[in-house]
Amino acid sequence: MALSRSLRRTNPITIVLAGLLAIGFLFFIFSPTSTAAFTSQERHDDAAQNPLSPPTKPFHKSQAAGNKRAPPPVVHYNMNNLTSSRDAAQNRERILVLTPLSRFYSGYWENLNKFTYPHQYISLGFIIPKTREGNAAYSALQSAITKVQSGPIDDRFASITILRQDFPPPIQSQDEKERHKLENQKIRRESMSRARNSLLFTTLGPATSWVLWLDADIVETPPTLIEDMTSHDKAVLVANCYQRFFNPDTKEMDIRPYDYNSWTDTPRSLDIANSMGRDEIMLEGYGELPTYRNLMALSADRSPERNTREIMELDGVGGTALMVKAAVHRDGAMFPPFPFYHLVESEGFAKMARRLGWKCYGLPNYFVYHYNE
Amino acid sequence: MALSRSLRRTNPITIVLAGLLAIGFLFFIFSPTSTAAFTSQERHDDAAQNPLSPPTKPFHKSQAAGNKRAPPPVVHYNMNNLTSSRDAAQNRERILVLTPLSRFYSGYWENLNKFTYPHQYISLGFIIPKTREGNAAYSALQSAITKVQSGPIDDRFASITILRQDFPPPIQSQDEKERHKLENQKIRRESMSRARNSLLFTTLGPATSWVLWLDADIVETPPTLIEDMTSHDKAVLVANCYQRFFNPDTKEMDIRPYDYNSWTDTPRSLDIANSMGRDEIMLEGYGELPTYRNLMALSADRSPERNTREIMELDGVGGTALMVKAAVHRDGAMFPPFPFYHLVESEGFAKMARRLGWKCYGLPNYFVYHYNE
Repeated sequence: MALSRSLRRTNPITIVLAGLLAIGFLFFIFSPTSTAAFTSQERHDDAAQNPLSPPTKPFHKSQAAGNKRAPPPVVHYNMNNLTSSRDAAQNRERILVLTPLSRFYSGYWENLNKFTYPHQYISLGFIIPKTREGNAAYSALQSAITKVQSGPIDDRFASITILRQDFPPPIQSQDEKERHKLENQKIRRESMSRARNSLLFTTLGPATSWVLWLDADIVETPPTLIEDMTSHDKAVLVANCYQRFFNPDTKEMDIRPYDYNSWTDTPRSLDIANSMGRDEIMLEGYGELPTYRNLMALSADRSPERNTREIMELDGVGGTALMVKAAVHRDGAMFPPFPFYHLVESEGFAKMARRLGWKCYGLPNYFVYHYNE
Repeated sequence: MALSRSLRRTNPITIVLAGLLAIGFLFFIFSPTSTAAFTSQERHDDAAQNPLSPPTKPFHKSQAAGNKRAPPPVVHYNMNNLTSSRDAAQNRERILVLTPLSRFYSGYWENLNKFTYPHQYISLGFIIPKTREGNAAYSALQSAITKVQSGPIDDRFASITILRQDFPPPIQSQDEKERHKLENQKIRRESMSRARNSLLFTTLGPATSWVLWLDADIVETPPTLIEDMTSHDKAVLVANCYQRFFNPDTKEMDIRPYDYNSWTDTPRSLDIANSMGRDEIMLEGYGELPTYRNLMALSADRSPERNTREIMELDGVGGTALMVKAAVHRDGAMFPPFPFYHLVESEGFAKMARRLGWKCYGLPNYFVYHYNE
């Protein structure tokens, strides 16, 4: 915290560059492809008049008044139908996918582009640190975006926002061992909280129904990730983040748990929290400091016949693939960059959501996969 | 909290109606008026192509490519100059004025319209409860907006967003005595926190430099309010909220303190907080429960020759006329709807901002005036 603060004093967090990118559906009428579920007329009606559109919704077209187009003094978005429901696609609910990005993995981008949820209802938001590595990621992301947003209509996303932060992340190395060192972890996750908050506060719009937090190193999910997760109709729902690896014992590819931040408390873990100093935090996944929590990562049924809709209530959640009803964020739930009930970042977010009266859940048998570094 | 929560379970907070209203500056060239500080060409260049614009910034015009306008695949907002500085107007910093509104006071609107800060850099955001009283306020606000946004160019605001919440506020009566009852105050301020958060998360955009929280019952401020407050270049700065009244003793109009939520802690007030149960909160302005804080309301010099730039550091701030650098909110500072260090709403916000490493200040001799009910 001390390091983080002193950095902030000299370089207070400001966003120095934001790109708001979007391709409207103006030329839809000429397009050879179409989405079965949405008629050509519907998509045309929904199209933005301007290729730039707000993060969450294309503009309504202005009314033609006689010969010349007069700007209307008052224009309404009728949002009586703004819902976040188990039938998200059918209700045309808009999803905001938010990703803090310090490295660009083509696996992440390809997986994202395979999402079957109608892309015209998906907006993307990225925040990229202002480092050499971040610059490279920014370039790679832009090339990828340009290609997709000028490709087939059905592949294009509703809008894309990129934010750059002008302060370096507290730990320069993204090397996995360095990144996970216990003493670095607190600083790293407080910095990550600020990045997530900047992204969230800047991109959430009036028409957003759901926010999907999807980490940049998640390279494989079911293509139906959005449909699957929204279908549970939960305020906060996290998938189980695993990793594929070559198992030297079996000489075969295998999977292992990766993200340990989704858990339920136990009497013993609560005792530990209660005995802590006000500014201490509990971190998961360090042998020298056991938390005695029940970890969702270790509750998975890995058998092929497992029930992927199995659900469990959680006290803490990880941020790797996390679906949140926009109303939870609008209530004020954010990622605390300071110890909040001895928790920070996504785990602190879960506590804050619960403090606001919402409940958090996880899908122990529904896997998403982390890049293997 | 119990009442608030049970209301929320049956009617979870969702925004049921949002109007995004804006008049671009397309016709500036035909306008007979002009702002001295900004040339006609500059304002024309800055104009939105579409009469609808995002909450914080008009669109850049797309580039004409030969005969037909091609939507560019990638468009950048160059935001290297996004600052929040003491020379806000000169740096063309965009201000987002946010107002939770349950009654429409013409005094509020007239005062707002007299602001000398260039209106093309001011966006407005309102959140209105879905009650009978709220409906009336909504209608009145719309009429007022229509008039201003179709009036002289220089009077028009950059954009206006209205959100409706679909749950009734916990206390139906807005009668002053009822509203201030101690037992109602906690519930009321937790509900107000949710309203402020909804408004903030939904309207803050990538180009916002400052957020001015201005309550709907503030009917008189200096017209230079924005210039005056930004000129101090503080992360969080609150004006002193007073009220004009007829003094029966002197038989003359007089002023008296109104908002007691701006204060500094004392050893005695900290003792009280430390002795409280986890979910108890300290509220200001109730004789039966003294807090022993130093109140900014009582630190004012009311003499005509007072120094209105006098400044004091604060631990808690009121939300009646509160200027916040957008970076503070982007960091995650919001209005806690739950007890946060025994504080809620704007006072909890101040604590959260301080927890994030920012400092809060107040202007004891700089008055804004509350409606006299």
